[in-house]
Amino acid sequence: MPDFSFHSIGTIHTPFKNRKGMPIQPAGAKNICGTIEILEKYAAGLKDLGGFSHIILLYAFHKSQGFDLEVTPFMDTVTHGLFSTRAPRRPNPLGMSVVRLLEHKGAKLIIQGIDVLDGTPLLDIKPYVPAFDGPAADALGWLEKNAAKADNLRSDARFTTS
Amino acid sequence: MPDFSFHSIGTIHTPFKNRKGMPIQPAGAKNICGTIEILEKYAAGLKDLGGFSHIILLYAFHKSQGFDLEVTPFMDTVTHGLFSTRAPRRPNPLGMSVVRLLEHKGAKLIIQGIDVLDGTPLLDIKPYVPAFDGPAADALGWLEKNAAKADNLRSDARFTTS
Repeated sequence: MPDFSFHSIGTIHTPFKNRKGMPIQPAGAKNICGTIEILEKYAAGLKDLGGFSHIILLYAFHKSQGFDLEVTPFMDTVTHGLFSTRAPRRPNPLGMSVVRLLEHKGAKLIIQGIDVLDGTPLLDIKPYVPAFDGPAADALGWLEKNAAKADNLRSDARFTTS
Repeated sequence: MPDFSFHSIGTIHTPFKNRKGMPIQPAGAKNICGTIEILEKYAAGLKDLGGFSHIILLYAFHKSQGFDLEVTPFMDTVTHGLFSTRAPRRPNPLGMSVVRLLEHKGAKLIIQGIDVLDGTPLLDIKPYVPAFDGPAADALGWLEKNAAKADNLRSDARFTTS
């Protein structure tokens, strides 16, 4: 089985110092602002990013360890297959969030609608393009009747490992 | 600098046997179907995924090596900062595509609108939820006048490494 080694290209800073009480998705963190500090050696790669209203962040759930193939998500009371949830404990603990980009200055980005733990290691940034990334969905599975709850739900300790 | 080690959880099969002539984004691969074979040991994690019309695939650009901080994307004729493009050669060669899920059976998924190379190693699957992942963008940067071109553009050899 091939292995892929990735490294942090920067750090996401947010007001969330621990995993309990966090919004569970950006939809529940609409007004929360954060900053991204990119390593200086990658800062030139941010050129032109400021023209985009939204960006895609790929990051490591660095505090997550292990996983279960069936989990009970924050937004439901019954178990679901792990890959039909956004739980942070995954075979590859990769996270993805679409956030609003408020400002780009040098190696620093100011973002809005961020739902990750302070100090989260950033792995990649991509421009968000609705024609590629934002299709109209016509089925939301078990989230159909639960997605609206994400605005108000906060995490508890169920996915923490320490 | 922390390192993160990820492994393939399955393989994405597509009609694209080499990198030249591929659609450059799912928007240009609307009718292209592919299959995902998940490793048996992870198949139980797919439970309930079939209820979602669209899923998010995170995968490794396994044929990409190295990167440049400024690139000339397929959709333009001038250079842009790497992180404002979707070029596969990146500090962490991670790819992300939102695709339509047509069928889930056991360890196999049939998907539509897939734009990756046959044999691409899959790292994660997440349910696509417009309320989290599909905001209305009000600025598309350098893509503003170029995004529509993605429907018809095909890749050339510029991002290949071999």
